[in-house]
Amino acid sequence: MVYGPTMTDTILIERRHDRIAELRLNRPEARNALSRELIGALDEAVTRLGKDPGIHVIVIFADGTAFCAGHDLREIRAARAGPDEGRLFFEELMAACSDLMRRIVLCPKPVIAGVAGIATAAGCQLVASCDLAVASTEAGFATPGVDIGLFCSTPMVALTRNVGRKAAMEMLLTGDPVSAARALELGLVNRVVDADRLEDETLALAARIAAKSPRTLRIGKRAFYEQAEMPLAEAYAHTARVMVANLLEQDAKEGIGAFLDKRPPSWEPLS
Amino acid sequence: MVYGPTMTDTILIERRHDRIAELRLNRPEARNALSRELIGALDEAVTRLGKDPGIHVIVIFADGTAFCAGHDLREIRAARAGPDEGRLFFEELMAACSDLMRRIVLCPKPVIAGVAGIATAAGCQLVASCDLAVASTEAGFATPGVDIGLFCSTPMVALTRNVGRKAAMEMLLTGDPVSAARALELGLVNRVVDADRLEDETLALAARIAAKSPRTLRIGKRAFYEQAEMPLAEAYAHTARVMVANLLEQDAKEGIGAFLDKRPPSWEPLS
Amino acid sequence: MVYGPTMTDTILIERRHDRIAELRLNRPEARNALSRELIGALDEAVTRLGKDPGIHVIVIFADGTAFCAGHDLREIRAARAGPDEGRLFFEELMAACSDLMRRIVLCPKPVIAGVAGIATAAGCQLVASCDLAVASTEAGFATPGVDIGLFCSTPMVALTRNVGRKAAMEMLLTGDPVSAARALELGLVNRVVDADRLEDETLALAARIAAKSPRTLRIGKRAFYEQAEMPLAEAYAHTARVMVANLLEQDAKEGIGAFLDKRPPSWEPLS
Repeated sequence: MVYGPTMTDTILIERRHDRIAELRLNRPEARNALSRELIGALDEAVTRLGKDPGIHVIVIFADGTAFCAGHDLREIRAARAGPDEGRLFFEELMAACSDLMRRIVLCPKPVIAGVAGIATAAGCQLVASCDLAVASTEAGFATPGVDIGLFCSTPMVALTRNVGRKAAMEMLLTGDPVSAARALELGLVNRVVDADRLEDETLALAARIAAKSPRTLRIGKRAFYEQAEMPLAEAYAHTARVMVANLLEQDAKEGIGAFLDKRPPSWEPLS
Repeated sequence: MVYGPTMTDTILIERRHDRIAELRLNRPEARNALSRELIGALDEAVTRLGKDPGIHVIVIFADGTAFCAGHDLREIRAARAGPDEGRLFFEELMAACSDLMRRIVLCPKPVIAGVAGIATAAGCQLVASCDLAVASTEAGFATPGVDIGLFCSTPMVALTRNVGRKAAMEMLLTGDPVSAARALELGLVNRVVDADRLEDETLALAARIAAKSPRTLRIGKRAFYEQAEMPLAEAYAHTARVMVANLLEQDAKEGIGAFLDKRPPSWEPLS
Repeated sequence: MVYGPTMTDTILIERRHDRIAELRLNRPEARNALSRELIGALDEAVTRLGKDPGIHVIVIFADGTAFCAGHDLREIRAARAGPDEGRLFFEELMAACSDLMRRIVLCPKPVIAGVAGIATAAGCQLVASCDLAVASTEAGFATPGVDIGLFCSTPMVALTRNVGRKAAMEMLLTGDPVSAARALELGLVNRVVDADRLEDETLALAARIAAKSPRTLRIGKRAFYEQAEMPLAEAYAHTARVMVANLLEQDAKEGIGAFLDKRPPSWEPLS
């Protein structure tokens, strides 16, 4: 079922399944830390796949024992050697990383994290930024920047939009990891499965969503994050307009007709 | 204990208990779908009961096995036959449905859903829009619009104001139902009770709230939704003013006096 | 380990541990109600300790069986005797209480509530306003203003920023207490411990946070509450700037270096 190129020599492996793109962070020796290069590769892939009419859903896995250890601290330390003590690099790095996280949110395709191992700092942010997340029972989540004098201030933007304030603050102030089971309770992940089932379960979830109308997914994902930032009256005014436009699309006509006629729907492809 | 007319031949049955109005969706043959007519009947009832000085709390039940199946898809399909392919009807329908949901939020009386059976799409939105919800163990909740090419964009406005983002997104992207027990964990309902206890438990909860000062309930419910949309400093400035006005009301004087004097309070009626 | 003065004859006892300030509400005969004087004492203490370079974390306990019963109703009743029926006093009281709650949020040091017994109305608000809260198994939480004709409108500002809407509304409309175990599920507290372990566990949590870089804690706590009120794009723009400034601080240089060199970090003191 896998087709397309497999680039095992890159920091980001990309595989294409039927309507699903699978991205794999591939810096296991650096615990998949988000080097500037890996951020760029992820951003490029999400941007490109977001426009790819053959792809309906994107899944992010990671090779090795850690899902993602956040920023690459060696890279940060090295940048301090410059005449500006790293300021320009830090500004560019933080902008690029925040842009990546927003790119996932703005991507018209659902993005699902499949998390085996530990996801820390910007790695935890990456999970929180995805639309859905499946965790292995052995996964863990932490925002431990406080332990290295660098508070997880950008990670908490995504974290606090998933998890209640007291729990988020505890993660941020203590740096302590939470288990996959606790992450499920807190709302940071959707499901916890055995480690040997993680990839299959995540891909099965992706496949079920990839079978829906991709145009409808695009309409809905966009409206989801837009309305979340609006007061109630504005949110209803906006989504009522979205619903009318959606109702006038061919896929709604087809979907409602198929439902009433008790037949399977046939969706318009993306173009 | 029931008095007032019982209109069993209408799509919305209304009964009056002592200080409690009970509304029952009565389109069991259509799984209580929110036809334009039923939306209008609910809006009229909530608006009128909101001003009725004899009513302190409104409860919404439904007849039949489904609580509410959302919009009436046959009505939507029929509207497509018009020269505008339904646009005007869809615009009016979405505006009316959103107005109904906001009417419940703006109603000065607490509104409680008592949910037996499945609540889907705008039916799930109706539950989320109520101030409180009691579910039977057999109830279920879903936003399955994605399966008919019509993303639940207006339902998610209410859903995401009850439920965390990852769980809401899962409901919206998969269309899968969540059980009553899961809905309780997610914060979509307040209590889960055996099916044969649903009506009694819901009415008992309503009766306890109906025994409070109705003027105080009105002050508090309004301030609740107002402050929820404000930044912290503004929310405190606003609610501090609300508290001062509340303190100067007769019911606060009476309530605090009664508490300190260890006697039951006597509340002012609504007028 | 305790040093500094112990003022057991005041309404607010203050003890200094190593880097931790412990405040104890000391009006057990009035169930630690927040009289105007106690609000003033707490505000003064939090303001002063927030600037004290020897203090990294503030902990709030209470003497007696109740953590805090909210406003002092006898004081409120007495104020009604004035020619303005108390209006000026109520205005000043509500402003002072709201300022105290915001002072805790704005305080550059983490503030942790250690809750034995019941916390009601503004007492529940005090717990919700703290960054973290540890509860004894015997603690309870309620917003019962509705029972005395005075809706908990200011308490709900803090409550709804910790707890989901349906659960918050149930507490506010019914006035019913929730147990410590339920408060943990709802996100109002971080941990529940046996009553005889409450003080040790709370202080141990405080001590672990007090060992972190106090400058980093200050940066992070401030950014936490700032970004929580921003739309996503603005939150990322803001926290990206915060991260760059944090990266250029000595403690980040030291912390990242220590981590990479596998040695314990040494933090800059506050000044």
